[in-house]
Amino acid sequence: MASSLLSRQLVLSLQQNLRLTAPGCRYVSKAAAKTQMEFEYDGPSMKTEVPGPRSKELTKQLGEIQNVGAINFFCNYEESRGNYLVDVDGNRMLDVYTQISSIPIGYPSEFPMFTSFSSQSAFVNRPALGIMPPENFPEKLAESLLSVAPSGMSRVQTMACGSCSNENAYKAMFIWYRNKERGHNIPSDEDVSSCMINQSPGCPDFSILSFMGGFHGRTMGCLATTHSKAIHKLDVPSFDWPIAPFPKLKYPLEEFTRENAQEEARCLEEVEDLIVQWRQKGRPVAGIVIEPIQAEGGDNHATPDFFKKLRNIAHKHGSAFHVDEVQTGGGATGKFWAHEHWGMDDPADIVSFSKKMLTGGFYHKDELQADKAYRIFNTWMGDPSKNLFLAEVLNVIRRENLLEEVTRSGKTLLQGLYQLQDQYPNLLSSARGQGTFCAIDIRDDATRNSILLKARDKGVLLGGCGDRSIRFRPALVFKEYHVHMFLNVFSDVLAEHN
Amino acid sequence: MASSLLSRQLVLSLQQNLRLTAPGCRYVSKAAAKTQMEFEYDGPSMKTEVPGPRSKELTKQLGEIQNVGAINFFCNYEESRGNYLVDVDGNRMLDVYTQISSIPIGYPSEFPMFTSFSSQSAFVNRPALGIMPPENFPEKLAESLLSVAPSGMSRVQTMACGSCSNENAYKAMFIWYRNKERGHNIPSDEDVSSCMINQSPGCPDFSILSFMGGFHGRTMGCLATTHSKAIHKLDVPSFDWPIAPFPKLKYPLEEFTRENAQEEARCLEEVEDLIVQWRQKGRPVAGIVIEPIQAEGGDNHATPDFFKKLRNIAHKHGSAFHVDEVQTGGGATGKFWAHEHWGMDDPADIVSFSKKMLTGGFYHKDELQADKAYRIFNTWMGDPSKNLFLAEVLNVIRRENLLEEVTRSGKTLLQGLYQLQDQYPNLLSSARGQGTFCAIDIRDDATRNSILLKARDKGVLLGGCGDRSIRFRPALVFKEYHVHMFLNVFSDVLAEHN
Repeated sequence: MASSLLSRQLVLSLQQNLRLTAPGCRYVSKAAAKTQMEFEYDGPSMKTEVPGPRSKELTKQLGEIQNVGAINFFCNYEESRGNYLVDVDGNRMLDVYTQISSIPIGYPSEFPMFTSFSSQSAFVNRPALGIMPPENFPEKLAESLLSVAPSGMSRVQTMACGSCSNENAYKAMFIWYRNKERGHNIPSDEDVSSCMINQSPGCPDFSILSFMGGFHGRTMGCLATTHSKAIHKLDVPSFDWPIAPFPKLKYPLEEFTRENAQEEARCLEEVEDLIVQWRQKGRPVAGIVIEPIQAEGGDNHATPDFFKKLRNIAHKHGSAFHVDEVQTGGGATGKFWAHEHWGMDDPADIVSFSKKMLTGGFYHKDELQADKAYRIFNTWMGDPSKNLFLAEVLNVIRRENLLEEVTRSGKTLLQGLYQLQDQYPNLLSSARGQGTFCAIDIRDDATRNSILLKARDKGVLLGGCGDRSIRFRPALVFKEYHVHMFLNVFSDVLAEHN
Repeated sequence: MASSLLSRQLVLSLQQNLRLTAPGCRYVSKAAAKTQMEFEYDGPSMKTEVPGPRSKELTKQLGEIQNVGAINFFCNYEESRGNYLVDVDGNRMLDVYTQISSIPIGYPSEFPMFTSFSSQSAFVNRPALGIMPPENFPEKLAESLLSVAPSGMSRVQTMACGSCSNENAYKAMFIWYRNKERGHNIPSDEDVSSCMINQSPGCPDFSILSFMGGFHGRTMGCLATTHSKAIHKLDVPSFDWPIAPFPKLKYPLEEFTRENAQEEARCLEEVEDLIVQWRQKGRPVAGIVIEPIQAEGGDNHATPDFFKKLRNIAHKHGSAFHVDEVQTGGGATGKFWAHEHWGMDDPADIVSFSKKMLTGGFYHKDELQADKAYRIFNTWMGDPSKNLFLAEVLNVIRRENLLEEVTRSGKTLLQGLYQLQDQYPNLLSSARGQGTFCAIDIRDDATRNSILLKARDKGVLLGGCGDRSIRFRPALVFKEYHVHMFLNVFSDVLAEHN
């Protein structure tokens, strides 16, 4: 089985890497040298409804400590393998949601790297990376994040999560914009004194232009650019920043090129109008932030032409262009970064990431680097242990040609969705996707939610997005036979809803 | 040596815990069963100036990737032990700064826990905790965070870092305040539609009252309440929120009780004025945020009486009271939480933490829990592997009576600082502290910085805070003989600056 090969090779890769390169490595234990008996299950296996009794019991326990309204069920991660997530009631599900799109190569079980002394150190001794990084930090950054840096970018800053990544990317854009406006980077006395009390000019009235339907995180700066669901934003103070319409396209894109081009032109015109309006309001647009595919907001696509023109508008008006690849990055679209589908040498000024990258952070062009120390800073600045994992994950992606695999599986998945859509025209519409990063619209919200639950009871784990879409977010090890397995179950569930 | 005992017991504790309680534990490897040869060094040992040649070389390498303006030097964490941090040039320093106050019990070297199967799983399979937590999540929360919950709080939410903790605590206060204002928790149609475009009433003009000199993080919500240094805030848009003066007290506090009480009364009066003013401006104060000791801002103390009265003012005006223990929490003041020194049964509505707690997060009273799912939410919601570490760290703190140790070492440290202050009255002033969480003021900024560098060259690592203070932030395993070792070096350095 292909995925069992994968797991063995991952183990071998880790062993080799740690034996040969880890500085200060004292021993490799027998556990590390042992060939792991890795396997993947041959299909879903359901023992109870989901959540089952044990999950319900644990949810009640956790309810004494936290809000558990979003808890689906509890997991047995020790028994989860490859594309299969096992819950605490022994239900084994084909995972097409992967922890909100955050598991890159499926559920690995035993990593032998922990038995090596130097790797343990990375987990136990968490350094303040901005002041006292470990010796192997530059090397591990080069081996992991920089080895997949977007075109035109050789600088990267790690952060602990997706929201922190975007918050700090916004700060980098504000600092850059203000220095450009000043013509130099020396703040006035008035800048220094006014910023301490949150006032302009030290805290200038700059804005970030975002798009309706976009999702960029939930901390207060990010949240001011998030416009996917009211529940995320309700009751939280925000900034008066411009919000442009994201194109509402018809799918498949290639069948509606003329209408879609008109819709994209309308949105781009609005973007430019907003930039001018907000400049006139004294809140100039320091940066534009956008997802290559609006994920949380409903898997809304736009064409490469739209993004190229948007990039040009940003340049024309002196705004930075920030591509948020927190959900799209890491290979699921069939390219490592979704923006690679645009075919541009200079796609962005900033690209942020998290989820499948295991660490948060952002790449940026040289000029977007903060000009002074302690401006983009916090205690941890990420977690170096995550860089170790990422380096190994990237090795597996390369060795196993997983991006090709994703492209292949994605084609099969999308073809299957098209067929089901033809078969159930009153139920399904707008099948769309890049790689395995696919989605389909369901008749209405209630039917969508019913389909999600029914699929889960049949052993396939899916997630919703937008008002009435289902998003498909398998790991990169989702093969064509997993696609067929999924399509069979999905087809059965749809038949029940027709 | 006491700390060698500590390390051995930590190892034993981990072994025991993992063997007996870890669910799904498949084997305990020989590595785990082996008695580790733990030790602590007997003093600093300097081989080069700091940063040495290897650190300089690595700083240059990292400079190709990131801003390195804040990098002190690179570390060899594998060789670091207990209170001693070893750099890549082989310099061994007594660490009285501990990664910006974030190392709880010194530098452990080998944790055998990783060789156990179920623990490995916690590191490799990072779950989306808000939807699919691992089976042992409630148990580990109870064993770790809840076992040290502040008085009156039985609910806790984990987050990835300090800034995210405070951002989400602010959101919890806004949600709570708005529902209180509504009299129910059902948003109007206007709330729902206006919040999507960042406008009131859906995004209400609520504010958080903070204090001049406070530090609560660097993401945009937190940053609006941070007022310690201009470099943190410059060029970043902010909120028009009220900022009260923090008392500027004279030390030792007990020698200036009358003047200090007057100063505190002045600040409290201002707080009340601001709350009224901001309500009149249409920006009511949903919450007040304060550190028990302003750390980054210069180790500014206030008396228990001040905090009690501030708490009462918050209650009187219907604002939530948020105590930020990101830097003060975890035992360094001689109590687990610094607010315990106030002697109150009901000290706060929210207590946030990070750093020494290894995970970020916040405790809160029942009524501060968000009323609906997905309001306080993100993909990872912390990292369960950190809870495993914390549980073990707390075991060590209890077994070794480290809070008593801190109180003892802290007294010796503060006495030593008083003596040096008497000896160098033109150089030193305002020695102050709780437990080992101590500080002293230096004549001026330039002298302070020179002292920090000279001490480092003699093998003692210190940090600055405020305009001209030195903050002492040893780990909880800093014993009296470490205090004496530090005082000897510090005394030598001061003699050079007199």
